[in-house]
Amino acid sequence: MEINGKHYRSVWLADDGTTVEILDQTKLPYELEIIQLTSMQLAATAIRDMWVRGAPLIGAVAAYGVALGMKHDPSDEHLQKCYDELIETRPTAINLKWALDRAFSLLQGTPTEQREKVAYTLAEEVADEDVKLCESIGDHGLELIKEIASKKPQGSVVNILTHCNAGWLATVDWGTAISPIYKAHEAGIKVHVWVDETRPRNQGLLTAFELSSHGVPHTLIADNAGGHLMQHGEVDLCIVGTDRTTAQGDVCNKIGTYLKALAAYDNNVPFYVALPSPTIDWTINDGLKEIPIEQRAGHEQSHVFGLDENGTRREVNTAPKGTECGNYAFDVTPAKYVTGLITERGVCDANHDALATMFSDLL
Amino acid sequence: MEINGKHYRSVWLADDGTTVEILDQTKLPYELEIIQLTSMQLAATAIRDMWVRGAPLIGAVAAYGVALGMKHDPSDEHLQKCYDELIETRPTAINLKWALDRAFSLLQGTPTEQREKVAYTLAEEVADEDVKLCESIGDHGLELIKEIASKKPQGSVVNILTHCNAGWLATVDWGTAISPIYKAHEAGIKVHVWVDETRPRNQGLLTAFELSSHGVPHTLIADNAGGHLMQHGEVDLCIVGTDRTTAQGDVCNKIGTYLKALAAYDNNVPFYVALPSPTIDWTINDGLKEIPIEQRAGHEQSHVFGLDENGTRREVNTAPKGTECGNYAFDVTPAKYVTGLITERGVCDANHDALATMFSDLL
Repeated sequence: MEINGKHYRSVWLADDGTTVEILDQTKLPYELEIIQLTSMQLAATAIRDMWVRGAPLIGAVAAYGVALGMKHDPSDEHLQKCYDELIETRPTAINLKWALDRAFSLLQGTPTEQREKVAYTLAEEVADEDVKLCESIGDHGLELIKEIASKKPQGSVVNILTHCNAGWLATVDWGTAISPIYKAHEAGIKVHVWVDETRPRNQGLLTAFELSSHGVPHTLIADNAGGHLMQHGEVDLCIVGTDRTTAQGDVCNKIGTYLKALAAYDNNVPFYVALPSPTIDWTINDGLKEIPIEQRAGHEQSHVFGLDENGTRREVNTAPKGTECGNYAFDVTPAKYVTGLITERGVCDANHDALATMFSDLL
Repeated sequence: MEINGKHYRSVWLADDGTTVEILDQTKLPYELEIIQLTSMQLAATAIRDMWVRGAPLIGAVAAYGVALGMKHDPSDEHLQKCYDELIETRPTAINLKWALDRAFSLLQGTPTEQREKVAYTLAEEVADEDVKLCESIGDHGLELIKEIASKKPQGSVVNILTHCNAGWLATVDWGTAISPIYKAHEAGIKVHVWVDETRPRNQGLLTAFELSSHGVPHTLIADNAGGHLMQHGEVDLCIVGTDRTTAQGDVCNKIGTYLKALAAYDNNVPFYVALPSPTIDWTINDGLKEIPIEQRAGHEQSHVFGLDENGTRREVNTAPKGTECGNYAFDVTPAKYVTGLITERGVCDANHDALATMFSDLL
């Protein structure tokens, strides 16, 4: 999508054909800085330290990381090392494992001298596929938004609440939850987005940045505000992304998603989750018991980035000295609170039968 | 309660007997600064700009504000002016109106030359009463905590989640929601408090500051985290305060309270609201429809205070330039999600009959 009129993906190959370039998302929305990843280790750091984030993008960067690794040393031992180092970076998003498993099994069957080339081709494939999946999610989600718009008085605005950033910055392009919003905006439907700030990492600021770059009307709100807005009819629809969805339709997503799902349920607001099929974990049934929830460093809770009075990006410590901070990165929304899943193949109910019917070839 | 071993109230009279002193809560927890209020207008500013906050404390400062006004000019016109200016400062907390109505009706029946003295006496009474009410709330809430502790394996910690600051800084002393926690801590019960950050004004930092000053174990968490913790059995009990509770038991409190109540309900975690009786609005039945919800300036959402790397208090703007921010200060939790109300007279169900039985003399 666009920044200042220029089209970007969130990850791409440099002109040399092997260096991997990303936008440093820890600097956004304050500074637009491109980082060059020249080694597998750097790709791992990029994922671990959240220079890139978002389940689909993590998968793509992991695939590029394997390619960087194969360029350096295409041996069996190093292939295993690449897998092991990259899989350790983040525990919750399943796309990471999906991309690494795919690369690993393909490269195991590839002669070492061809591994670099094959790995780069695969990484480009993973990235291109993600773009296509996300655009299809947008098309299917657009139909939902059209339907809601058709039930409102002509010309009224459709208010959509989203949590975290599941836009193009969380994928390779288009996004998951935001893709239908871009499509609706381009189709001339009046949309307005309630953007959850999404503490502690404030990914909502990335969403605000994205929407602003595309001219989509939006309002930044505290994570606390969504329930109140739903109680007062100010939300027509929620759409969020997911880092892992179980075969039963339980949705693991950014911490706080569950609270919004509860409020949507309590106020009869449709609550949709947008996801490409690589985000489905077919091996897990009970999301609450089986999905590992990442706990990150406490200072991510206490310390906040922003611009100071001189426009300089600066970090402040909000917490009293010595305060212990908890930093749980994800939660699980049980399937019963999910109205539907917006996938690249269409919208389905959040349960095993519906998912198995739609993706029978993946089972 | 104590700061660095010294006992403070959140509002008190200076040695001259007429100047009103408060702690500047906009500077806490970073700087301990005392502000002298020397006029009714300054008292109004203190409430409006949240140098003081918390429903019971707002009521007390309003009473002191009337006293400052009567000192300056005890005429009928000025009495009316004091009422009108102070009532306009914040719309949601009912204690403000309760204190002002009480002062107004008393002073109307008082000869002008005695009004200053009577007004100061009343303000001291309001403050002293609040301390007593809050301590009683603590005693009754302690019984609840004892009961929960008795059902857990001996020596295990009781985990209590609270939202916003309903501690002594929100009242004159002791607090409402935190009062039972102080009492439990003093009674030797092992308690640990999950402190919601409480965006956008981060009043959770005041709670962390208070608890830290008293040595009560606590962990600061994002507002998004409570649902996840409840799903995993990490919360035994929620206690929050309220800015206005209806005769039917609907609870208006800091934005985001409703989301925690939904999560507590979904996970069978008891959800209690602590309040002194002046916080009950007997004239309102439907909290959701009838309680005015304050909307504050958007920059309170985008701008965050903290300490920079030099330990200097500094504000940073987290939002991309031009971002519109919504800032809804309160929400309403329907009575059906409230396990019980902890009042100065005991614990009762959140419904009209229970409230009317407990406070029949106030109806």
